[in-house]
Amino acid sequence: MPVPEGSGFGVNNLPYGVFSQRGELPRVGVAIGEQVLDLAELAASGLLADRRWFAAGSLNSFMAAGRQVWQPTRDRIMTLLTDISYRDEVEPALYPMSDVELHMPFTVADYVDFYSSRDHATNLGRILRPGDEPLLPNWTRLPVGYHGRAGTVVPSGTPVVRPCGQRKGEPEPVFAPTAKLDVEAEVGFVIGVPSALGRPVPTGAFRNHVFGFVLVNDWSARDIQAWEYRPLGPFLAKSFATSVSPWVVPVDALDAARVRPPAQDPEPLPYLRCDEPWGLDLTLEIEVNGHVVSRPPFAEMYWTAPQQLAHATVNGAALRTGDLMASGTVSGPRRDQRGSLIELTWNGTEPLELPDGTKRVFLEDGDTVRITATAPSPDVDPIGFGEVIGTIYPSPT
Amino acid sequence: MPVPEGSGFGVNNLPYGVFSQRGELPRVGVAIGEQVLDLAELAASGLLADRRWFAAGSLNSFMAAGRQVWQPTRDRIMTLLTDISYRDEVEPALYPMSDVELHMPFTVADYVDFYSSRDHATNLGRILRPGDEPLLPNWTRLPVGYHGRAGTVVPSGTPVVRPCGQRKGEPEPVFAPTAKLDVEAEVGFVIGVPSALGRPVPTGAFRNHVFGFVLVNDWSARDIQAWEYRPLGPFLAKSFATSVSPWVVPVDALDAARVRPPAQDPEPLPYLRCDEPWGLDLTLEIEVNGHVVSRPPFAEMYWTAPQQLAHATVNGAALRTGDLMASGTVSGPRRDQRGSLIELTWNGTEPLELPDGTKRVFLEDGDTVRITATAPSPDVDPIGFGEVIGTIYPSPT
Repeated sequence: MPVPEGSGFGVNNLPYGVFSQRGELPRVGVAIGEQVLDLAELAASGLLADRRWFAAGSLNSFMAAGRQVWQPTRDRIMTLLTDISYRDEVEPALYPMSDVELHMPFTVADYVDFYSSRDHATNLGRILRPGDEPLLPNWTRLPVGYHGRAGTVVPSGTPVVRPCGQRKGEPEPVFAPTAKLDVEAEVGFVIGVPSALGRPVPTGAFRNHVFGFVLVNDWSARDIQAWEYRPLGPFLAKSFATSVSPWVVPVDALDAARVRPPAQDPEPLPYLRCDEPWGLDLTLEIEVNGHVVSRPPFAEMYWTAPQQLAHATVNGAALRTGDLMASGTVSGPRRDQRGSLIELTWNGTEPLELPDGTKRVFLEDGDTVRITATAPSPDVDPIGFGEVIGTIYPSPT
Repeated sequence: MPVPEGSGFGVNNLPYGVFSQRGELPRVGVAIGEQVLDLAELAASGLLADRRWFAAGSLNSFMAAGRQVWQPTRDRIMTLLTDISYRDEVEPALYPMSDVELHMPFTVADYVDFYSSRDHATNLGRILRPGDEPLLPNWTRLPVGYHGRAGTVVPSGTPVVRPCGQRKGEPEPVFAPTAKLDVEAEVGFVIGVPSALGRPVPTGAFRNHVFGFVLVNDWSARDIQAWEYRPLGPFLAKSFATSVSPWVVPVDALDAARVRPPAQDPEPLPYLRCDEPWGLDLTLEIEVNGHVVSRPPFAEMYWTAPQQLAHATVNGAALRTGDLMASGTVSGPRRDQRGSLIELTWNGTEPLELPDGTKRVFLEDGDTVRITATAPSPDVDPIGFGEVIGTIYPSPT
């Protein structure tokens, strides 16, 4: 298989997604180079086991099948793509990515968003509660998180309409389009195998439940958020749209990216301890209108994905196939590593100058934001996450 | 149809649910007196229009069909139950409620919980932030709400296992079964007809989208909540279980219960104004181990259901069939009208004496909580909501 350098979709990646050609039903495919391999077609011709998993408009059935299915399927796809003897059968199932439409890859069950970057939480504490200790006392003890709106998780490319809402005003609150529309660059993991109500999932069971990772842009309206969030947390400031990348990178594709996470002090409670290193050395990149404004380092995240999963279920909450758990905004210690505009412009007080001569404090109508990420791979070419992209449309008047 | 007095399920109610007989598949039914009318059977014999809506394990397809279907279906069921000429055809489709199993009536899409009782929010402000103004400045301006976990909304009768979690401790946080397990007596509404992303649903469109109402017990672990909730709101303190009643009372059954809600001062922003009175004169009743401990008055709720719906969508968030939006704890001004134990016992400082001689601050293992509600009806007999019930099981050790 010819895989162009820099595509990020080499044979060690093989992310899953849902695609369609014009006029045909969506089905499951795998990205390889600049092409999509049609798994439904391979299954129909007997090259892959179970057709029902792949002739579907979402990954959910395949994700629910579990690791004992994911692993042999991944091995088999690798063989089909690298063993020359399958070439004549595989080639007709390959479509140029530019010719297909990519869809929402899975049906979201519940959406949980964490807050696990120490630099991000510290920056927001300094901006929103100046003079106070920036990190609240619970932050180093547990991965703070909350539920977001699953029904408005949308695939990359979906237009983002600037939301209207209430914000603080004197003497009266103001209803208007948000003046502080922001991005949050995040990485999310997707549950494949459900868990039973009343049964916590320990950190060591992470790989048995989690199918893969996606990029997440948790669009945020900072003025709406500041007015509404006490005491029950963000609601309308987030629920208008959350965009995800179309390709789900399998957990197995990230083995070479695993690193020891930052040291945790104080030591977490036993249920949050993890024997294996689950930091992930991904570098995110945020582009506004084609200009890179930040490169957030995911390896710096304080709380890891298995810790987030163990925390979210320690009270016995059940997992469902399609649960999406996002990391929270990824920010590093340097200014050019911050994962949101509220941090990059310090709540609008330090405008960002783009190379095209324009300035930004928050997003303007017509702006396009693109988030990408790469991870080390056993190859020369890194593992790519593809992109999550969105363009801002004006509020209807 | 003989409808025993006090059943709450007279011919003016006709709530929908999902039931099964031993060994058969769940299907849609309507409660009438102490019986269940099998709508799948009526549809199969040609007495009701579309079988696919009723030979289903959830109400979702029927709920999605909209008011132009709900209204004639309700009228037809009333006729079938009251016109003597249908008796021979209808009787075989009636089953004693005691012989059937009641299931989760609908598949929950997103679960939103509001905080719309002024007495409840004031009580909690006094208990949790003593010395401060009990209501935060946003509370009278918008119906404060947040997203809960849809995947752990369970039907009445599901055992509630006492959740473990972190709570504050000195010098270290403590991990243990919650010592402050509480109830929240609420009323929720269920979305039938979805809305498009980017299109707010005004208060006047409430009846076009909302299928009906259920009782909700939003079980809460107060010690977990107090430690985790800043700054992103409640998470594990709520996500272990939320119980709902099995019968969905149609909006049309509540016409006689509609009353003018409490005056709102300051006047809400235009998007929250409502031309029609949408207070609902329901009286809830909370029983612990068979003893009534409170009778919360739903007519006192400050924010109404159409205002909650308009608020939740004003940012363009889409609705899906099965979205559940709960009122928040219903509390009235008197002590015996408070909808949670944290209020009834003032955070455990004023134990509640039950008529059996026992005392309660929060729930103990083995306790059973039952919430019921009735609304005025055009008949002598009020409209009943049935019950939402749950028994506390110990944490696994």
